[in-house]
Amino acid sequence: MRIVIVGGVAAGASAATRARRLSEEAEIIMLERGPDVSFANCGLPYHLGGEIADREKLLVVKPELLARRFRIDVRTRSEVVAIDRARKLVQVRDLAHGQRYDLEYDKLVLAMGAEPLRPPIAGLDLAGVFTLRNLADIDRIKAFVDGGVGSAVVVGAGFIGLEVVENLVRRGVATTLIELQDQVLPVLDREMAAPILDRLRERGVMTRLGRSTTAIERTAIDLEVVLTSGERVATQMVILGVGVRPESKLAAEAGLELGSRGGVKTDGHQRTSDPDILAAGDMVEVTCHVTGRPTMVPLAGPANRQGRIAADVIFGKESRFRGAQGTAIVRVFDLVAATTGLSEKSLRQSGIAYLKSYVHPNQHASYFPAAMPMTIKLLFTPGEGKLLGAQVVGGEGVDNRINVLALALQAGMTVFDLEEVELAYAPQFGSAKDAINMAGFVAANVLKGDCPQVYAEDLPAPGSHTHDRPFLLDVRTPTEFAAGAIPDFVNIPLDDLRGRIGEVPSDRKVIVTCQAGQRGYYATLILKHAGRDAANLAGGYTLYKRTHPQTR
Amino acid sequence: MRIVIVGGVAAGASAATRARRLSEEAEIIMLERGPDVSFANCGLPYHLGGEIADREKLLVVKPELLARRFRIDVRTRSEVVAIDRARKLVQVRDLAHGQRYDLEYDKLVLAMGAEPLRPPIAGLDLAGVFTLRNLADIDRIKAFVDGGVGSAVVVGAGFIGLEVVENLVRRGVATTLIELQDQVLPVLDREMAAPILDRLRERGVMTRLGRSTTAIERTAIDLEVVLTSGERVATQMVILGVGVRPESKLAAEAGLELGSRGGVKTDGHQRTSDPDILAAGDMVEVTCHVTGRPTMVPLAGPANRQGRIAADVIFGKESRFRGAQGTAIVRVFDLVAATTGLSEKSLRQSGIAYLKSYVHPNQHASYFPAAMPMTIKLLFTPGEGKLLGAQVVGGEGVDNRINVLALALQAGMTVFDLEEVELAYAPQFGSAKDAINMAGFVAANVLKGDCPQVYAEDLPAPGSHTHDRPFLLDVRTPTEFAAGAIPDFVNIPLDDLRGRIGEVPSDRKVIVTCQAGQRGYYATLILKHAGRDAANLAGGYTLYKRTHPQTR
Repeated sequence: MRIVIVGGVAAGASAATRARRLSEEAEIIMLERGPDVSFANCGLPYHLGGEIADREKLLVVKPELLARRFRIDVRTRSEVVAIDRARKLVQVRDLAHGQRYDLEYDKLVLAMGAEPLRPPIAGLDLAGVFTLRNLADIDRIKAFVDGGVGSAVVVGAGFIGLEVVENLVRRGVATTLIELQDQVLPVLDREMAAPILDRLRERGVMTRLGRSTTAIERTAIDLEVVLTSGERVATQMVILGVGVRPESKLAAEAGLELGSRGGVKTDGHQRTSDPDILAAGDMVEVTCHVTGRPTMVPLAGPANRQGRIAADVIFGKESRFRGAQGTAIVRVFDLVAATTGLSEKSLRQSGIAYLKSYVHPNQHASYFPAAMPMTIKLLFTPGEGKLLGAQVVGGEGVDNRINVLALALQAGMTVFDLEEVELAYAPQFGSAKDAINMAGFVAANVLKGDCPQVYAEDLPAPGSHTHDRPFLLDVRTPTEFAAGAIPDFVNIPLDDLRGRIGEVPSDRKVIVTCQAGQRGYYATLILKHAGRDAANLAGGYTLYKRTHPQTR
Repeated sequence: MRIVIVGGVAAGASAATRARRLSEEAEIIMLERGPDVSFANCGLPYHLGGEIADREKLLVVKPELLARRFRIDVRTRSEVVAIDRARKLVQVRDLAHGQRYDLEYDKLVLAMGAEPLRPPIAGLDLAGVFTLRNLADIDRIKAFVDGGVGSAVVVGAGFIGLEVVENLVRRGVATTLIELQDQVLPVLDREMAAPILDRLRERGVMTRLGRSTTAIERTAIDLEVVLTSGERVATQMVILGVGVRPESKLAAEAGLELGSRGGVKTDGHQRTSDPDILAAGDMVEVTCHVTGRPTMVPLAGPANRQGRIAADVIFGKESRFRGAQGTAIVRVFDLVAATTGLSEKSLRQSGIAYLKSYVHPNQHASYFPAAMPMTIKLLFTPGEGKLLGAQVVGGEGVDNRINVLALALQAGMTVFDLEEVELAYAPQFGSAKDAINMAGFVAANVLKGDCPQVYAEDLPAPGSHTHDRPFLLDVRTPTEFAAGAIPDFVNIPLDDLRGRIGEVPSDRKVIVTCQAGQRGYYATLILKHAGRDAANLAGGYTLYKRTHPQTR
C-alpha cells in the first residue's frame, strides 16, 4: 500500500508518523511544497523578537529523522499541481529541478493547511509588505527588521497579529496595529479583550480599530498605509495578519466536495467525498463541538489529531474526530487571554439562547504574594446551565482555568458542576474556592434566580430621568466611589446598607454595583430580603469600565 | 431561628456567611476556641519563611467584618465543652473571662476541624517541640526560629511537613526530615514522590525515611530525637507534622454517630445522626468520589463546600456533597507535586483492579525557552479506561494538568477522552499535543493492546540467566546508554533497529526501554511488526531510576 501525504507540517506529519506506527509495510511518501517539514509555526513570531533566538529550534522534526526513524520518503520543495482521482495519482512539480512527475497512490492524505488571506488591498506586492506562514516568511521579516526598521504596521489584531506586534515592540520598532473590528482579538468578546487593548497601548502600540485598509503606497521615503477613514499611516514595513483561508483549491479542482466556507468536507473520519482521499488540518471543515454545525478551526491541536485519525482510518481503525471547540490562548506582554467554545457574539449570530456571568477572582490565594485578578466569562444555556463557551483574561493561571473549562465543555458539564469541582489548592496555585468554583457559583446564582443580574448594556442612558428609571446604587467605599464611578449611581457602602435601607426606594427597580460584583451580590440579597426589586450589575465597575472606556 | 456554629475557620466561616446570604432574619452565632477566625491556615508555613512577611495577611476575614457585613455574632476564645441535644443547647466556656454559659440553638453546625496527631512519643511536651495548626502555633515557631536556631527536625513528610521544611531551609536552618514510610509525600506513590526527595536532598535537607520516632530527649545543650533504628538526631527544635485527626470528641460525647476513622458521619447533606446538628469540614467523614466508600479528606476546598452546603440544607435548599477526591498540590522549592483520586497504593489496598501509565511530556512547546518535563501517572480501570487517579510531578504547568485531570475524574471520563481533549496551545503554555493528550495516548495504547507495557517491578532480577529470561533492549543512543543504563540491557539505537533486527531473538519475550518511553514505544511496534513478542518499559529509564535510586 502506498500512502501519499500532501503537506508536511502539523496534520501531515502526524498522519505520516502514525501511519508508520500502524504499518511497517506501507510505503509512505510525504510531499511538501516548502523547504521544511514539521516546523514550529506557532513559534515563528518569537524568532523575530529573539525569545527563540536559535532558528534550529523551530525545525521540530527534520526530514532526515522522518526518513531514518519512520522510513518516510520526505520530498520537500515538491508541489502537487493536480490530483487525478480516476487514475489515483497526483502530479508533482519538483521545485528544485523544475521537473514534473506522476505519483500513484492507494490512499491520499491532503494536509495542505491554510494560507494567509490577502484582502483586496492595493500595494500588497510592494517591498516591505509581508505575510507570515512559514520559516521563509519569518526569515524575510527578521532580515528586514535586522536591517534597521523604526516603524511597522500590523494589519489584523488576531492571535498571530498580536504575537507579531509584541515581538516588534520587543525589537524596539514603533508599531501601529490596524483592525477592522472595534476591538483586538475579535474571536473574544470586546469587553474580555479590553485589558489586552489597554496593555498594548501602555506598551506604546498605536492602535487604529474599526478601520479598514484600502491601500499601501510607496512614498519618497517609506510606505503609507491608507485607511478607508482617509487616515494615512507612514511606516517602513507592513505585516498582514488578517486571517487564513483553507488551501483547498487543488481539492476543489479534483472535484472534492467543499463546505460553504471553502474547507474540504469530510465524513467525521477524515474521509473526503472520495473514499481514497482523506483530508486533515486547517484545510478541512470541522463540526463545531457546541453547535454541531460546520465551521473552520485552524488550530494546531485539532490538526494534529485529525492527521492521526486519518492514518487510523486508512488502517481500518475505529477513529472519529469529535469536533473542534476552538480552544485558544495568547500571551500579550504580561497578560494572557484565552477562549474555548463560542463567544457571546457567535452565539448571538448563531441564534442560540444563552446566559452569561462574569467573575474577577485571583489566580491564587489573596494572602500569598503576587495574587492578581483574572476575569472569567461563562456562557451557558438558560435551562440546564450547560457550558457553551468561556473566556479568561488575566496573567498567571489563565492557562490553567481555560483548560479546565475546555474539558468541562467537552464533557458537557454545567455551571453547577463547576461549583462542585475539587481543584488543587495550595496558596501558590489556587484558592480553597478556586476561580472556577467562583465562576460556577455566580453562574448558578443567575440560573437559580438567587441573585438577579443585569448587564452594563441594560443600564439606563446616563442622565435619563424617566419615572421608571431604576435606582442606581454603588455599594463600594466612599474612597473607591470617589476614584471613579458609573454616571448617576448613588453611593451607600455595603456595610452601611442595612442601617440606611430607607434611602433605597421601594417603588422602583434597584440596580446595584460594586468593584467586582461580590459586594453587589451581598447587597442585592440584603435588598431582596428587605422587599426591594434588586439586581446586581454583572462584573461590577471593573467590567463596566471595559465596556465604557470613555468613563475612565 | 438561631444557628450556632462551632468553629470559625474554613467550614464554619463558609456556613456562617452562606447562612446570612440565605436569611436576613436568622440569628447566627459563631463560637471559636482560638483568638482568630477565618485565618489562612494553608499560608502559615510561609509566614515562618518570610514569603508572607505580613502576619495581617493571614487574617483573611476578621471578626469585625463578619459582624459588620454579615451580622454574625462572632465569639472568639469561646470553647464549647458540651452539647445537650435534649435541651438543644451548647455549654460554652469563655476562655478570656473563665465564665461558662449555656447557649440554645435551633440548628447547630459543628465545624471544629482536625487537630495535629500527637503520636506516642516521649518528650512531646519539651520546650522546642511544636505542632502547627493555627496562628498562635506559627507565632511560637517563628519566635523560636527568630531567636536563633541552627538546626531543626521535622517529623512527617506530608504536605505540611514539606512546606515547613522548605521554609526552615529558607531561614537557613539545617533541617532533618524524618518519615515513617520509605518515601516523602506518602499520599503519592513512591516513584512519583522521588523527584521531590531528590530536590530536598539537593537543597541540603537530611532525610531519615522509613524511620519511626520513639522519643525526644533533652541533652545538656539541645534536643535529641531518638529513632527506633537507634539513631539519635541532635537538634534545637522539633516540629511534628504527622497528620491530623478529626476533632470529634465533643460530637462523640453527645452521642453523634462516628465513622470507623473517627470522623462524624453525615447523610451526604451534612446532617449528622441528629437532624438539628450538621457537621462540615475536616471533622467529618466523607464519601470517596472514586470508591464510594467512607474516608477522611482534610482539605480546605471540600471543607468550604461542606460549610456552604450545611447552610443551604438548614434553609431547605436541595444541596448535596458529591464526595471528595483528594485533589492536592504542594510546591517544594522549584518543584511541584500533585494528586487527585486514588494512588496506586490505595487502589491496591482497596482491592480495586487498575492499569497504570506514565509519560514525561514538557509543560509547553519544546522549542520555546524553559521547556521542562513533568511526569504524569494515570490510574484507570482495565476495561473502560475510566480514570481512578492521577499524579503529576514537575515544575511549571503541574497545577494546570492536575486540575484538568481532577475535572476529568469528577466527570467520570476515560483515558480515551483525554486523547481527544482540546486544550489551549500557544508555545508558552502547552503543545499541539498537550501533556494531557500524551498521557491519554499512552494509556489508550495500553488499554487497546496497541503497545504492551511492562513495569520496572516486572523486570528480571539483575544478573538472572534463566532460559526464559526476556531479552532486554535499550534503544537510546550509545551516548545516553553509556551515561547510565538498567543492568543487563543491550543497546541497539532505535534508528538502527530495523537494520539490526536479526540481533533480537524471536524465541523470547523482548522488553524495550528508552529514556522516557516514546522511542521504546516506536521500537516495540517495529518489533511486533517483525513478529517479536515485545513490550515497552513504562516511563523508560527516567522512571526506572526513580524506583531504583541505587543505580544512579
